[in-house]
Amino acid sequence: MIVVMSPEATETQIDGVVKKIKEYGCDANISRGVERTIIGAIGDERSIDQELIDALPGVEQSMHIVKPYKIVAREWHKENSVIDIKGIPLGGNTIQVIGGPCSVETRQQMDAAARFVKAAGCRLMRGGAFKPRTSPYSFQGKGVEGLEMFRRAADAQGLPIVTELMDVRMLDTFLEWNVDVIQIGTRNMQNFDLLKEVGRTNKPVILKRGMSATVSEWLMAAEYIAAGGNHNIIFCERGVRSFETYYRNMLDVTAIPVLKKETHLPVIVDPSHAGGKAWMVPALSRAAIAAGADGLLVEMHPKPCEAWCDADQALNPDELKNLMVELKGIAQVLGRDI
Amino acid sequence: MIVVMSPEATETQIDGVVKKIKEYGCDANISRGVERTIIGAIGDERSIDQELIDALPGVEQSMHIVKPYKIVAREWHKENSVIDIKGIPLGGNTIQVIGGPCSVETRQQMDAAARFVKAAGCRLMRGGAFKPRTSPYSFQGKGVEGLEMFRRAADAQGLPIVTELMDVRMLDTFLEWNVDVIQIGTRNMQNFDLLKEVGRTNKPVILKRGMSATVSEWLMAAEYIAAGGNHNIIFCERGVRSFETYYRNMLDVTAIPVLKKETHLPVIVDPSHAGGKAWMVPALSRAAIAAGADGLLVEMHPKPCEAWCDADQALNPDELKNLMVELKGIAQVLGRDI
Amino acid sequence: MIVVMSPEATETQIDGVVKKIKEYGCDANISRGVERTIIGAIGDERSIDQELIDALPGVEQSMHIVKPYKIVAREWHKENSVIDIKGIPLGGNTIQVIGGPCSVETRQQMDAAARFVKAAGCRLMRGGAFKPRTSPYSFQGKGVEGLEMFRRAADAQGLPIVTELMDVRMLDTFLEWNVDVIQIGTRNMQNFDLLKEVGRTNKPVILKRGMSATVSEWLMAAEYIAAGGNHNIIFCERGVRSFETYYRNMLDVTAIPVLKKETHLPVIVDPSHAGGKAWMVPALSRAAIAAGADGLLVEMHPKPCEAWCDADQALNPDELKNLMVELKGIAQVLGRDI
Amino acid sequence: MIVVMSPEATETQIDGVVKKIKEYGCDANISRGVERTIIGAIGDERSIDQELIDALPGVEQSMHIVKPYKIVAREWHKENSVIDIKGIPLGGNTIQVIGGPCSVETRQQMDAAARFVKAAGCRLMRGGAFKPRTSPYSFQGKGVEGLEMFRRAADAQGLPIVTELMDVRMLDTFLEWNVDVIQIGTRNMQNFDLLKEVGRTNKPVILKRGMSATVSEWLMAAEYIAAGGNHNIIFCERGVRSFETYYRNMLDVTAIPVLKKETHLPVIVDPSHAGGKAWMVPALSRAAIAAGADGLLVEMHPKPCEAWCDADQALNPDELKNLMVELKGIAQVLGRDI
Repeated sequence: MIVVMSPEATETQIDGVVKKIKEYGCDANISRGVERTIIGAIGDERSIDQELIDALPGVEQSMHIVKPYKIVAREWHKENSVIDIKGIPLGGNTIQVIGGPCSVETRQQMDAAARFVKAAGCRLMRGGAFKPRTSPYSFQGKGVEGLEMFRRAADAQGLPIVTELMDVRMLDTFLEWNVDVIQIGTRNMQNFDLLKEVGRTNKPVILKRGMSATVSEWLMAAEYIAAGGNHNIIFCERGVRSFETYYRNMLDVTAIPVLKKETHLPVIVDPSHAGGKAWMVPALSRAAIAAGADGLLVEMHPKPCEAWCDADQALNPDELKNLMVELKGIAQVLGRDI
Repeated sequence: MIVVMSPEATETQIDGVVKKIKEYGCDANISRGVERTIIGAIGDERSIDQELIDALPGVEQSMHIVKPYKIVAREWHKENSVIDIKGIPLGGNTIQVIGGPCSVETRQQMDAAARFVKAAGCRLMRGGAFKPRTSPYSFQGKGVEGLEMFRRAADAQGLPIVTELMDVRMLDTFLEWNVDVIQIGTRNMQNFDLLKEVGRTNKPVILKRGMSATVSEWLMAAEYIAAGGNHNIIFCERGVRSFETYYRNMLDVTAIPVLKKETHLPVIVDPSHAGGKAWMVPALSRAAIAAGADGLLVEMHPKPCEAWCDADQALNPDELKNLMVELKGIAQVLGRDI
Repeated sequence: MIVVMSPEATETQIDGVVKKIKEYGCDANISRGVERTIIGAIGDERSIDQELIDALPGVEQSMHIVKPYKIVAREWHKENSVIDIKGIPLGGNTIQVIGGPCSVETRQQMDAAARFVKAAGCRLMRGGAFKPRTSPYSFQGKGVEGLEMFRRAADAQGLPIVTELMDVRMLDTFLEWNVDVIQIGTRNMQNFDLLKEVGRTNKPVILKRGMSATVSEWLMAAEYIAAGGNHNIIFCERGVRSFETYYRNMLDVTAIPVLKKETHLPVIVDPSHAGGKAWMVPALSRAAIAAGADGLLVEMHPKPCEAWCDADQALNPDELKNLMVELKGIAQVLGRDI
Repeated sequence: MIVVMSPEATETQIDGVVKKIKEYGCDANISRGVERTIIGAIGDERSIDQELIDALPGVEQSMHIVKPYKIVAREWHKENSVIDIKGIPLGGNTIQVIGGPCSVETRQQMDAAARFVKAAGCRLMRGGAFKPRTSPYSFQGKGVEGLEMFRRAADAQGLPIVTELMDVRMLDTFLEWNVDVIQIGTRNMQNFDLLKEVGRTNKPVILKRGMSATVSEWLMAAEYIAAGGNHNIIFCERGVRSFETYYRNMLDVTAIPVLKKETHLPVIVDPSHAGGKAWMVPALSRAAIAAGADGLLVEMHPKPCEAWCDADQALNPDELKNLMVELKGIAQVLGRDI
């Protein structure tokens, strides 16, 4: 860590900073410039609380030199991590497309959806039984009954399931129903108690990016899960909040190469929630794969016009099938398969 | 609700929209313009799920005419609601400044803080026992032990306490320790299960705005609490995420008159988390009160340089005292007191 | 246009709105709902100034039904426009990659750059002679001398040139030096006098998106050029301002399909200014082409480490060559060539 | 400047950085930490182009220690600068409210406006003769004819005038008509050629903040004007672009204390363009003054409902008068007058 003192800083203030740095077990190197004095902390600077340093009298600014994330950082783990989901690898050379409806509605809908997902060539299925909705008066999901419908429909096609956990008290139920991948939604990316709990399981976790989370905050949220012992983490970019009103969220495609550089963990993209309209999904899906994503989370509904929520962002079965063909072509250009 | 059909919409598609609107129990009024046909839904449009309408073939866009929030809306409740906190009114003519440290650290710190808060003329005290921290390796708060220290210190000065609830499983503990005001933090504004649970209590709730929540989403989050039966809700603006890097968050002062127009519930401001630096707090506090806020949540630490977190945003006791004098002057200009 | 009156609107206020709409040459349709009265303007609503309507007493909100852009809108011009740049088509089936350095530095640098651009398979060359720099103390470009160097180097390879016009007073010089494509930079997207002037020429114009311009504002800026008679407009997405600090701008890949839907004009992407780092350029370039862009504006410098500005975002000649191979593969998947 | 080398940096790369720093006339101090080597540049680091340093092989990140702005910086000019506008001081203890209509429309409108502005107690008048409008089909201002009407109406009341310059070619006309304060609008904050030209005059300049400009970019834009020799610069915060759709722009009230700390030049606020609705103006005006602004730019129209543009954000004469009373009260609390 580098600490820049203000031009008016006194010797006593400089000594104060040095003392604080030593309390954290680091050594201090003082460098007196023409206009300002600069103090370098030498040692394991992750132990230093930057806010406390910034608060000391005479300090103008400080800068961390070492990244604050450890377990998830590629700096300490050079090779890609491949997450095993019931034998299906995510994060390796094969790209995985996770298809399915936004929410679980009926037994028939789920059975049909599972068949179409399988037929399109997807190896994993998504579906929401518990739905985070802006309004308390909107449909909140089928709950445990939905989990059951989902489990059954997916099992019939041999598809592992991905579903969102919103409430820490439902974790045991998720484990009972043997949910294969737990999804943490955008509104819960910094629900730290929830992160700690899924960190105590060994279930693969899809961690969606918070609505306006920086890449660094997102990596730190993953670090919460990892610190609990669960390293089976998959990042999912789903668009961030912006000033643009034409579409729902702005897909941050740059986050893909950035994450691939910063972490060894897999990165997938949700093109459906990003744009919010089905007609945008193919372009965004292709862009994500071309940028290096390890997979997608795509909404597909057997009959989009009858869906109970987020209908206008779901592909129909044929659109999903066609999309898979295009994606396969792009994957091959990159030396991958799908 | 107004539904605008695309220029190519067919009669069958127009009929489809009319049919859907009627399924929701509304009536439909068709108006054929030169370029587009427009359909108006007449009746209680809150029952209509806009996403499903948008998803129908031939629909170009739709617009809600009526606001989606009910209980919290001023439209249906013209007078200001005054929340009673152990006899102290929030939301009336008297402005309330809630002072105290970011986090509970030690018995002495809390005792001193409580004395200074009282001496500055504040009638309520804040302090965090459970802390949402970006890093899992940072200090996470003193927990239940902290609640106890806080309760004792505040009781000795006769100050009701405000503290943050992060985990739904801790709600009973909060009720046991008789927390007077439950704070929902920015990261949990859309933790819907937490909102539902505090909605089942009758405790006043301070609902902080999400990092990048729109005013409308914020009002809907409050509606979650209100729908459970608890109408004792206080909105707290604390700055939003922006592109500016000079300070931590951008205080959205415009949200104050906007909320006062849209809701009958009180609106307070947290100038400490907004700017992130103690030297910004007086200017932001004055701006908030001048813009019509009903109160403030201000960080004050007996010895800011020794604080365990967010040290650089806490005022010291003298600064808080001086700020109270300025705020009293501004309150008087607006015909209020403090 | 739809005008929603507030619940308290009087008959006189409703009459006032109807009168105003008729002044604009439109007809008015009044629809009285349970809670609000809604007035529809029938006719050419583009003539109505929305702000004036919103200002009338009793008006709660209004909504345009028809898009405010005309000449650039696909609604009125269904087929893709192909811009002819000295015989090279932009906007058709062939994707064009425009390569070259950020700024013109020396004769040798430009000669080498032109050779490498040609060798990589690009058909157009970029280079800045006038540079918009944040600081008045930074290198501001070689000016007219730079234009000359650029012209010569490109002519030797038979490459049309693209360069930025910042000052309306330099337009004649640009025409004298026969600049083939005039670039309007992000900071000038709403420099309306500059737009009007280039609108009076018949030169192809690359219109970069403003730092935080909405798609709608961008289309309207193009409409300024088109209204002057120059329809040779190329949109260039170059990333927008966001809260993320890891990279320079957030590439808005969703804007590509959105623009392709809203306008018949070509859309290209500048991956170099978006990310701001050379190592991000290949991933962003692939994503742009996969999402449907008609071309790219890529920085390539013969010796990036010696560049005079924006050095860390330029590819070296080999990197550009390799990128072209990948892009060709993706283009083929989409049925295009490069 | 501090340069952080990546963990894999070689000795040759370290030498390369040192060499480059010395080329800029600075000295280099090398500090080898456990994980990374850090190089400090000692001397006048403003001469170092950060982008070129970042581009050198082995460099991970770099940080400027000294602020890049000089003439406008408070660091080198401790006392407040007071700008003299025909004898009226801006930036001193007296707060100045600049009132007037958004655009010049007719002789009568301007005469009436000038009388009301004077009657409300304002000492300066605003009005737009050249209007930056999103659409080429909207009213673009009365042009030179408008300047004349404005000049006459203001002279009759002895009010200096403030008006926007959009086109560098109109500067001479502005000087001929003796415009007292030249306003640079938000869309032109980084129109560097325009900034350079007004920098060559000695006219006071109001520099509005760019739609999404950081405080640092804004200060650098002012530095462009100052570098030309014109130090009569007034910053004007007018709200920035955000994700919020309820109002037009988000007023960044925090920018006021930040600018007062970073620069010695005056800071005013435009509450009318920020919120975009007249009913928000009083609250935002009070907040701006309470936060320490030196003045306001407020829209007032003799008959807001008949205004030709931005009607819904203009106060009527009575509202302006009442606002002045409130502002006087707040100014007094801060030891200022109005």
